[in-house]
Amino acid sequence: MLDERENAAGPTLADLGEDGLLSVIFPLLPGGPGVLIGPGDDTALLRTSSGSVLATTDAMVRGRDWLDQWSTGADVGVKTVTQNIADIAAMGGVPTGLLVTLIADPQTPLAWVRDFTRAMAQAAEEAGVPVLGGDLSSAPEGVLVVSLTALGECDGAEPVRRGGAQVGDTLAVCGSLGHSAAGLLLLQRGQGGQAPELVDYHRRPRTPYRQGPLAARAGATAMIDVSDGLGRDAGRIARASGVGIALDEALLRDDVEQLRHAIGAEDAWRSVTEGGEEHSLLACFPSGPGLPAGWRKVGEVLKGSGVLLRGHLVQGGGWDHFGG
Amino acid sequence: MLDERENAAGPTLADLGEDGLLSVIFPLLPGGPGVLIGPGDDTALLRTSSGSVLATTDAMVRGRDWLDQWSTGADVGVKTVTQNIADIAAMGGVPTGLLVTLIADPQTPLAWVRDFTRAMAQAAEEAGVPVLGGDLSSAPEGVLVVSLTALGECDGAEPVRRGGAQVGDTLAVCGSLGHSAAGLLLLQRGQGGQAPELVDYHRRPRTPYRQGPLAARAGATAMIDVSDGLGRDAGRIARASGVGIALDEALLRDDVEQLRHAIGAEDAWRSVTEGGEEHSLLACFPSGPGLPAGWRKVGEVLKGSGVLLRGHLVQGGGWDHFGG
Repeated sequence: MLDERENAAGPTLADLGEDGLLSVIFPLLPGGPGVLIGPGDDTALLRTSSGSVLATTDAMVRGRDWLDQWSTGADVGVKTVTQNIADIAAMGGVPTGLLVTLIADPQTPLAWVRDFTRAMAQAAEEAGVPVLGGDLSSAPEGVLVVSLTALGECDGAEPVRRGGAQVGDTLAVCGSLGHSAAGLLLLQRGQGGQAPELVDYHRRPRTPYRQGPLAARAGATAMIDVSDGLGRDAGRIARASGVGIALDEALLRDDVEQLRHAIGAEDAWRSVTEGGEEHSLLACFPSGPGLPAGWRKVGEVLKGSGVLLRGHLVQGGGWDHFGG
Repeated sequence: MLDERENAAGPTLADLGEDGLLSVIFPLLPGGPGVLIGPGDDTALLRTSSGSVLATTDAMVRGRDWLDQWSTGADVGVKTVTQNIADIAAMGGVPTGLLVTLIADPQTPLAWVRDFTRAMAQAAEEAGVPVLGGDLSSAPEGVLVVSLTALGECDGAEPVRRGGAQVGDTLAVCGSLGHSAAGLLLLQRGQGGQAPELVDYHRRPRTPYRQGPLAARAGATAMIDVSDGLGRDAGRIARASGVGIALDEALLRDDVEQLRHAIGAEDAWRSVTEGGEEHSLLACFPSGPGLPAGWRKVGEVLKGSGVLLRGHLVQGGGWDHFGG
C-alpha cells in the first residue's frame, strides 16, 4: 500500500509524459502463451482455441479530443469509429465487431447521445462492422467520454506489424496527409470557412480501411495508421524495425500544395509532416514491384535510425496526451 | 444536424434513466450475421472465421464508482478486473484477454497509476488472463476513469444466456450476497472498523470465476452475475426467460445473519436482496439432480413474471447510473 503523503508529493502523469508512463505500465502487464502480439503495436493479436482475433481500443474525451463548439455528437461518432477501425486496417485486418462505452454527466442532452449513436452506427455499418454491445456509466459534471473497442481478423493471413521494414523498402501512404491538422488550425484561427473540406476532414477523418488487407496481400513489410503525425508514426516503424527512414521532400510537395492556399506554406509543411488524427495508412513495401493502386511513395527505408527530412532528423511533433 | 436550442431545451440522460437510454440506443445499433449474441446479455458472442469469442466491457469512474477516501488505486484495479471477468464467467466462459483504458487528469499522481496497474495485473494473473494492450487518454481536471474490455471463450460449449430458465428450475447462488453493500453502508456510517471483512469485500469483490464454466457443464439453464442486486438481476433472468422467480426467505436467512450484527436486521435484508457490486454468480438449474458443489438454493422458477419474496414483488432496487 502506498503512503498517502508520498502520493501527494510524488511525480504526476504530466511529469512523465505519455512515453514515460507507458514505460512504467508495460513491464507490469502479464502476458501469456496466447498473446501473439501484445502491447505496443496498432492492435493486439490473441490466439483463440481455433484461430486468432485482433483487438484494439481507443477513447475520446470532451475538452481534450474534441470541443463541442467545433464538433457535434455525430462528428465524434464518426471519428471514434474511424480511429478504431484504422488500427485494425493497419494490421492488414478486417473489423468484425465493436464495443461502445459512453461515460456521461447525467445532464448530457439526450439529443447529443442520439446524434452520436446514429452517426457511429452508420459509420460502423458503412465499414461492415456490427456493434456487439458496450457499457453506460454516469460521470461527474461536464464529463463526456466515449471509448470503443474494435475486434477484427486477418482472414488467415499474417498480420502486418510495425517491426518488419527492411533497408531498401519504399515508404508509402494511402490517403491524405495533414488535412486534419490544417482543418483544426483553421478552426483555431476562426477561418473555417476558407476551406470547409479541411475542417470537415478534421471532424470526420476517413481511413481507406479496405486498403489495409490489400497492402498486406501486396507484401507490405510494416504498417501503421497516421494518428500522431507522419514523422512520429514513421519513427515508430523505424524504431520497431531497427532502421532509419528518409522522407522525400519532392514527393511531399503535392500534399503541401493542397494545404498551402488555406494555411500558408510553413504551416502546410508542418501539417503534412507532423499533423495527427489523419488516420491514413503508412506502410513499407519491397522496392522491386510497383506499389498497389491508391498508394504513393513518400520516402525510403535506410540503414540507421530515426526519420530524416532534407537531411535533418524530424523531431517528435504529434500529440503527447500528458504533455511530458 | 441538431438545432443547438433544441439541445439545450430537450431531455437529458437523467430524464430518461439507464433503461430508457438503452431503449433509445439499442435499436440504432447495427447487427450482422456474425453476432451470435448482441447487446443485452452479460457479454456479446461474436462468430470468428473458425470459432467464436465472448466480449464485454465495463468502466469505473472516480466520484461515481469509487471515492478516493475509501478506495486505493489497487482496490480499483482489483475491482475492475473482477467486474469484467464476472461477466465472462456468467456466460459459462473462460477469460482469454483484457484491454485496459486509462483516462486521467495529467495531474494524477503516478503512484496511483502504478498502484492500480500492479493490482490489476496481479488480479488478471490470478485469473489466468493476459493484458493484451489498451489506451491512454488525458482528461480535464479531476477526471479519472478506467475502462476494461474482457475477451473470453466457451471452450466449445454453448454459452449460458439469461433467457433459458424453465418453470420448476432451482435458482442458486455461488458466492456471497450483500457483503459489498454492507461494506459500503459501514463506510458511509464511518463504522468501517466494525466489520473490516465487509469493507474489504466492497473494495475488492471476489467472483468464483471458475464456477461459471462448471455451472455450464452441470446444465445451468440461465446465468448472470449479481452486479445490480439479487432482486434486479434475478428479474433480468425472469424477463429474458418469460418466467417468474420466487426467492425463498428461509434460504436467505443465513446470508442475512452474516450481516445482521454489523448493520442491523433491516439493512441486512436490504443488502442481501438489493445490494449490488457483489459479482457472485446467480444461475438456474433443472430441479432433478443436486446442485454443483459450491452452489446453494435461494429460490425457484415459477410461471408468471417478476421476482417475489414473501409473496410480494421485489421492487427494482439496485443502481441506476442516470438516476431515472
